[in-house]
Amino acid sequence: MIKRKKIVVIGGGTGTFTVLSGLKKYPVDLTAIVSMADDGGSTGVLREEFGILPTGDIRRALVALSSYPEKFLVDLFTYRFHEGGVNGHNFGNLILAALERVTGNFENAVAAASRLLDVHGMVLPVTFSNIRLYAELENGNVIKGETNIDIPKHDGNLRITRLWLQPQGRANPRALKAIQDADMAVVGPGDIFTSIIPNFLVSGVRDALYKTRAKKVYVMNLMTKHGETNGFSGADFLSVLDRYVGKDIFDMVLVNNVRPPEDILRRYKKERAEWVSSEKAEQFLKGKLHFVKAALLRRGNYARHDPNKLAKALMNML
Amino acid sequence: MIKRKKIVVIGGGTGTFTVLSGLKKYPVDLTAIVSMADDGGSTGVLREEFGILPTGDIRRALVALSSYPEKFLVDLFTYRFHEGGVNGHNFGNLILAALERVTGNFENAVAAASRLLDVHGMVLPVTFSNIRLYAELENGNVIKGETNIDIPKHDGNLRITRLWLQPQGRANPRALKAIQDADMAVVGPGDIFTSIIPNFLVSGVRDALYKTRAKKVYVMNLMTKHGETNGFSGADFLSVLDRYVGKDIFDMVLVNNVRPPEDILRRYKKERAEWVSSEKAEQFLKGKLHFVKAALLRRGNYARHDPNKLAKALMNML
Repeated sequence: MIKRKKIVVIGGGTGTFTVLSGLKKYPVDLTAIVSMADDGGSTGVLREEFGILPTGDIRRALVALSSYPEKFLVDLFTYRFHEGGVNGHNFGNLILAALERVTGNFENAVAAASRLLDVHGMVLPVTFSNIRLYAELENGNVIKGETNIDIPKHDGNLRITRLWLQPQGRANPRALKAIQDADMAVVGPGDIFTSIIPNFLVSGVRDALYKTRAKKVYVMNLMTKHGETNGFSGADFLSVLDRYVGKDIFDMVLVNNVRPPEDILRRYKKERAEWVSSEKAEQFLKGKLHFVKAALLRRGNYARHDPNKLAKALMNML
Repeated sequence: MIKRKKIVVIGGGTGTFTVLSGLKKYPVDLTAIVSMADDGGSTGVLREEFGILPTGDIRRALVALSSYPEKFLVDLFTYRFHEGGVNGHNFGNLILAALERVTGNFENAVAAASRLLDVHGMVLPVTFSNIRLYAELENGNVIKGETNIDIPKHDGNLRITRLWLQPQGRANPRALKAIQDADMAVVGPGDIFTSIIPNFLVSGVRDALYKTRAKKVYVMNLMTKHGETNGFSGADFLSVLDRYVGKDIFDMVLVNNVRPPEDILRRYKKERAEWVSSEKAEQFLKGKLHFVKAALLRRGNYARHDPNKLAKALMNML
């Protein structure tokens, strides 16, 4: 019997959903390590009302890896109520909240939901500490909460100069073990300040990534994001990672080399988001790291990674 | 291969939960036909806010028949929230409400929940019509809604002189088929006016029970219930069934012959509920129907049927 290769995906949000959706079709051992900084929307309300840990990113990863044979269960975990006292709540979040109560703690709840959804692989919260994300802007103002950084109420042109967790949180030991044992660690794609880096701010995670013999891959962002990475080039993303994840820590960077269609770029421009071309990242990396360019764009109305193309490119790098 | 015998259980509430929990341990084909008159508590709120059919009795039957190997799933379907906008909601009801939205209709929702819970047998709503239960009291007053009859705000000593549905509702064709094909039809135990008879008020159900060649068994109530059956003897229960279900329709009546302990009876007396002794029912039935007495009482603090004793007695009658 050939031993399956182990891939650990670190992130949160829709980017991680995309990577997992693609990779789950391959015969690999998949583990998703998921940010626990989310405090917006339905997740934020549940954090307030129930005092439970954030469910949103966990739920997305569980859904991505579900192999339950019927569609209704994933639909149930994705459904959002539009009526009554549950108005606005994502039902998957409510299931995780109820499971937390029923099973006694958040870890058991995620494990139970994993079995219910017939999850192909493993979903691990990066920490079980009740953390909050903070950002300091170049004007000295401090923003509290992932959602307030993600959807800026402040002047979104101001750069983030410092990012931290309060409390810092202790890493989930099983997440550290998964990083240690992996053959490949995939970081991203995702909002760098609100989905990616919050994982590495948790005590122990940076060290684990340093020490593992896993191949370390960063999936470069397709687009900049207003309020987080305005005007960022690929080089800018990499220097932020140098600072928060570790100097020259990645072995490889995977970059999309297809420019999205002009009408899509025009639409994104209204939200002050721009395409991240591969050029500057290549210059930044020249001679240092392995740089992989591939056509990763998904056909459709958004500038998104294609899960299948992304997974194929990653498998080629394994 | 021996063909499994088919048992259909008709009712609602905790009585039906008890019968199903006991019978599911036997190698029989089980179908539960469940009242759709419930409009109290969490179910009532969901009927109002979501315009969905009542979920409470369906949920109890699903949980009773679940053979999912892990405890958490039944716990999830039974959990009641005590916080936030979902305060007071039973989570099984919420799952059925969300499944109704996700699968497009109530029938699909019940089927999906059945597969999720690995239900041993079949749970069928007696109707998919949006019915309401009405009762007229001996003073001429009309009470609207199952919950207002069940938990009387009126003078609970007044007898119910008439009971009807509005609209009358059309029977679920699969429920009629199940009655037609059954080897045994078990009615009760349960609150006679609020859980049992509402099934037979739906157009087509009485006829189906008349026509089937199934053995028809009524499980006699253990206790009277204030506001519904004050001072009822076994004979009184049977004459109500004569009127609403059908004259002499039952082939057999199963009655508990063990008097509950005095301390329990004293407690029930405060809620104006009394033990239904087998004597008067026996007199009523003398010479007409088969009358089965058995020790059906469950040990514990309540006067309840024991699921195993009840199932054993029923299997002996099959």
